[in-house]
Amino acid sequence: MKVAVVMGSSSDWPTMKEACMILEDFGIEVESSVVSAHRTPLQMVDFARQARGNGIDVIIAGAGGAAHLPGMIASMTTLPVIGVPIETKILKGMDSLLSIVQMPGGIPVATTAIGSAGAKNAGLLAARMLSLKDESLAGKLDDYEASLIKKVEAMQHDLH
Amino acid sequence: MKVAVVMGSSSDWPTMKEACMILEDFGIEVESSVVSAHRTPLQMVDFARQARGNGIDVIIAGAGGAAHLPGMIASMTTLPVIGVPIETKILKGMDSLLSIVQMPGGIPVATTAIGSAGAKNAGLLAARMLSLKDESLAGKLDDYEASLIKKVEAMQHDLH
Amino acid sequence: MKVAVVMGSSSDWPTMKEACMILEDFGIEVESSVVSAHRTPLQMVDFARQARGNGIDVIIAGAGGAAHLPGMIASMTTLPVIGVPIETKILKGMDSLLSIVQMPGGIPVATTAIGSAGAKNAGLLAARMLSLKDESLAGKLDDYEASLIKKVEAMQHDLH
Amino acid sequence: MKVAVVMGSSSDWPTMKEACMILEDFGIEVESSVVSAHRTPLQMVDFARQARGNGIDVIIAGAGGAAHLPGMIASMTTLPVIGVPIETKILKGMDSLLSIVQMPGGIPVATTAIGSAGAKNAGLLAARMLSLKDESLAGKLDDYEASLIKKVEAMQHDLH
Amino acid sequence: MKVAVVMGSSSDWPTMKEACMILEDFGIEVESSVVSAHRTPLQMVDFARQARGNGIDVIIAGAGGAAHLPGMIASMTTLPVIGVPIETKILKGMDSLLSIVQMPGGIPVATTAIGSAGAKNAGLLAARMLSLKDESLAGKLDDYEASLIKKVEAMQHDLH
Amino acid sequence: MKVAVVMGSSSDWPTMKEACMILEDFGIEVESSVVSAHRTPLQMVDFARQARGNGIDVIIAGAGGAAHLPGMIASMTTLPVIGVPIETKILKGMDSLLSIVQMPGGIPVATTAIGSAGAKNAGLLAARMLSLKDESLAGKLDDYEASLIKKVEAMQHDLH
Amino acid sequence: MKVAVVMGSSSDWPTMKEACMILEDFGIEVESSVVSAHRTPLQMVDFARQARGNGIDVIIAGAGGAAHLPGMIASMTTLPVIGVPIETKILKGMDSLLSIVQMPGGIPVATTAIGSAGAKNAGLLAARMLSLKDESLAGKLDDYEASLIKKVEAMQHDLH
Amino acid sequence: MKVAVVMGSSSDWPTMKEACMILEDFGIEVESSVVSAHRTPLQMVDFARQARGNGIDVIIAGAGGAAHLPGMIASMTTLPVIGVPIETKILKGMDSLLSIVQMPGGIPVATTAIGSAGAKNAGLLAARMLSLKDESLAGKLDDYEASLIKKVEAMQHDLH
Repeated sequence: MKVAVVMGSSSDWPTMKEACMILEDFGIEVESSVVSAHRTPLQMVDFARQARGNGIDVIIAGAGGAAHLPGMIASMTTLPVIGVPIETKILKGMDSLLSIVQMPGGIPVATTAIGSAGAKNAGLLAARMLSLKDESLAGKLDDYEASLIKKVEAMQHDLH
Repeated sequence: MKVAVVMGSSSDWPTMKEACMILEDFGIEVESSVVSAHRTPLQMVDFARQARGNGIDVIIAGAGGAAHLPGMIASMTTLPVIGVPIETKILKGMDSLLSIVQMPGGIPVATTAIGSAGAKNAGLLAARMLSLKDESLAGKLDDYEASLIKKVEAMQHDLH
Repeated sequence: MKVAVVMGSSSDWPTMKEACMILEDFGIEVESSVVSAHRTPLQMVDFARQARGNGIDVIIAGAGGAAHLPGMIASMTTLPVIGVPIETKILKGMDSLLSIVQMPGGIPVATTAIGSAGAKNAGLLAARMLSLKDESLAGKLDDYEASLIKKVEAMQHDLH
Repeated sequence: MKVAVVMGSSSDWPTMKEACMILEDFGIEVESSVVSAHRTPLQMVDFARQARGNGIDVIIAGAGGAAHLPGMIASMTTLPVIGVPIETKILKGMDSLLSIVQMPGGIPVATTAIGSAGAKNAGLLAARMLSLKDESLAGKLDDYEASLIKKVEAMQHDLH
Repeated sequence: MKVAVVMGSSSDWPTMKEACMILEDFGIEVESSVVSAHRTPLQMVDFARQARGNGIDVIIAGAGGAAHLPGMIASMTTLPVIGVPIETKILKGMDSLLSIVQMPGGIPVATTAIGSAGAKNAGLLAARMLSLKDESLAGKLDDYEASLIKKVEAMQHDLH
Repeated sequence: MKVAVVMGSSSDWPTMKEACMILEDFGIEVESSVVSAHRTPLQMVDFARQARGNGIDVIIAGAGGAAHLPGMIASMTTLPVIGVPIETKILKGMDSLLSIVQMPGGIPVATTAIGSAGAKNAGLLAARMLSLKDESLAGKLDDYEASLIKKVEAMQHDLH
Repeated sequence: MKVAVVMGSSSDWPTMKEACMILEDFGIEVESSVVSAHRTPLQMVDFARQARGNGIDVIIAGAGGAAHLPGMIASMTTLPVIGVPIETKILKGMDSLLSIVQMPGGIPVATTAIGSAGAKNAGLLAARMLSLKDESLAGKLDDYEASLIKKVEAMQHDLH
Repeated sequence: MKVAVVMGSSSDWPTMKEACMILEDFGIEVESSVVSAHRTPLQMVDFARQARGNGIDVIIAGAGGAAHLPGMIASMTTLPVIGVPIETKILKGMDSLLSIVQMPGGIPVATTAIGSAGAKNAGLLAARMLSLKDESLAGKLDDYEASLIKKVEAMQHDLH
């Protein structure tokens, strides 16, 4: 059971490591690397086409601006692909979001929120997908949900 | 192996049936129903909390405008939830998209494109997720990909 | 006569305390707490369904991003619900605004401006609503209006 | 107990009559008229300043484009004012929405969704406000909620 | 020959003084004051209705957010009114711009760019209008144009 | 006393004739022609540079999309220039509006609303400007204002 | 001298044929075909990598929605690539535009306007590029420019 | 073989020098200057009309806000013109982008991304165009592409 986390540039790492951290918290193996749709297109083709054969279950791809990485990978594998729109300096990630989410019928990309929240949720979404075949993950997801309730309880004291 | 397809109103059906059709093409059992976050909130709570126990693997939820259904369901189950932003008459679904995709860290919704293409891709995304535990689906997804190539080949004659 | 001020996270407090402050200035009892639509959905259900019985007159709910709290509460109470779109780091609260204001026919949310001005106005709007049954509040609202005129008069000296 | 429904032009009537219809369904007295912030500004001043004295409890104001009517009325009365952004031909009501909702701190306008859904919800919001002093309205609002659940149940048969 | 420069709050002064400075450079008398559509609506009515009688030729009005000042003044005078959309902290002045520029047919507001450039141009626009009856201003406007060319020439040395 | 009404294409005429009609109603001489910034740039230069000499008082320029006509004319004359953003098929005139209104400091364009309402208001704005030197126009503008009030009165019967 | 015109679907043909027609008018050889980034990714790789070797000078690529075709081709050739954002049914091509134009530094795409005007201009842009090595094209471009002036002259009669 | 890089103000230089640097890296002669559509319109006319005669092959024009420079130059030359939308303080360059890219059919501008990435790509795009007549540039572009792959390889170590 393995999730690949790829991104178009190492500058996306501060965002994308949120996905890796959550996956590691759930005990899921993660492989992270820089794969650029635009600068290393042929490496991207190889990565996407060999992903299932290489034992990868889910691919999380982060990209910003004219964000082509998640959609292009999704077009060359049948694994579930999660796209994380990276916040951009100028258009704040609205360009990333539309480039990732508005895929044509036939090639799905599971898109999450712009930025760090989206990367964290990409990790959680992968865990939910993997819970379909690994029941122990369902239990861990229940525990995670319970921890969110505790966090909210703790917040009550911050209103003063 | 079962996918639930829910929507906030029967007026979403012309969009959401695209998801059902693709799932049926892949031989995946589908349960579709109207569940409204705003008009039937308690029924929604029951639906979401009992989904895993009821043998559902993936939930596809379509909603428009202030589209709360996918995110609320995602907060009450640990199954993967796919959100389809319904095109709206006035703001064309930009309201639906932002209401669905901009989830806070902790509660993931796999968002697809606005409208029918998004609904179709929601079905395909569910199939990709289920292929993690059912290898026969991987083969069917390969066939589907091949059919897309054939479609493009057939289109060459339309340019004149 | 009591107003409940709820918000999805304690990070919304710097915004939402503007509502509390104005209510306290008007001598209206306030109960503030963190209630998250996504992290504590069942607590939210209880809060909303018991609000009228608990002597609450008006509910002010602040939320950001895919902001589901005001609309979900409004679907489970018949009290007037005021929604405050919290400014978000990335999309500046346009996501919050559309998620709150674009409610379907049947479930009203009284939406105010994005951010602190909106929270302050939520408090004032609650006071205006309560003035329908408590005439002393109408007098206080007149005084408040007069104070705004004085403020503008004092500003004349700042143009130089 | 009376609600005034005003609008900038008779061309807003097809939208605003949704507010009137719901109020009439709840047995609430309605007074509707055309009051234009831009074409009849002095009449608007008189209307707003005399509203409370004239026995009006809540004002619903619909306006489109550079929609100044709700905010201007709110600045000259202490009654609760509900603003309905009318859908516009060119910018679809995004101009109306921002002109109404982005009020400065001090002058609240309770904003609803763009268009007919917003007008209907304006009527319901007024009914919720009035239920604070008229308990029979709370019962009618409970009945209305129940009718929404029935509508959703009836929709199940439309998915085929 | 006199231009009135009004604004909704003294916080708009850093922007609006650009208009005053350019008018003073052209030797045009300026009267600046805070007039708030929302906090001092009746003072605004008096100001607008008496403007022509008070010897004012052109009114420049700056406002932000739900920016009603320019349009409301334009509805109560037949003088030319120039509206300056103030940059806002959250929506950057897109709300101000749409609230000012999208006036209905019948009540014109001459809208300039968002922020300081717009305020400066409001002053220049007033000077252009006044040049219709004061030919000496046409000469000064020619000189101003020539100064812009000199500025661009001086900029050539900054590219290195 | 003469107003020039120019536009980038004869397809803008249905919009721009609104400006001409209002000017004719006020008895102001109008000269209308097609002048394209992009297709006839040199003719545009001549037009703009000779406008004041040719007895023109105000220029109204309509343009759509990357709408350069009003700003370019304003850069080559010191007359007041009014820009009308033409509604476009695809982006509804948001492109026209931003291309016209966001002028840099130094070169003012008096921008009106997108489409026909904006063209009509451009005519009225020119009349207001000309009233600075022709007092009879002030009287006609008063009459026009009174006619708007009558129109609103007549609308009361349309609400039923 | 040859220009390739490619598009993601035959449904883009009504738009993209504008590019072909203008190129044929200029006597430039055109090769048009459907190449989908998402449905035929490997064929796209081959097309892009072999383009220069196949005697192609300029590539014009049209795509809509999450429009990845122009950017992906540009990443696999060093020929100039022109991207045409196709108008989309729901978001009107704003998604196409941002997906095409917001390319990261290193991989340029020459983007034109959304829709048919953009396709026509893509053809003209290719002709301008080719005029760098074929002087006869410069002459034809001059003739084209002259024809635009004539068109504007003919339009004068349409204003009445 | 020469590329002209022009911009509306020296404040655009930090962005536009990215274009110059890349062109110098490729050994292409660059001429940079400030040419303002609005402040020096006649100089702009001269520049554009004489460009081809002056031995310029490609023009790169950067402009912000109501960005008219690239389109106006394109209307007075038949050379390829590349437009770079400068990031603006208030609207982040969305105004610049729409003002540049939405050109009417007949006058093409090759638009790149907003800001520095767009300026860099403008330089690369010019190099790609010039490679049509100078084969040595094709080789340099291949080297550049290879350098991008190396950069990505080096980034792998930054993920930790």
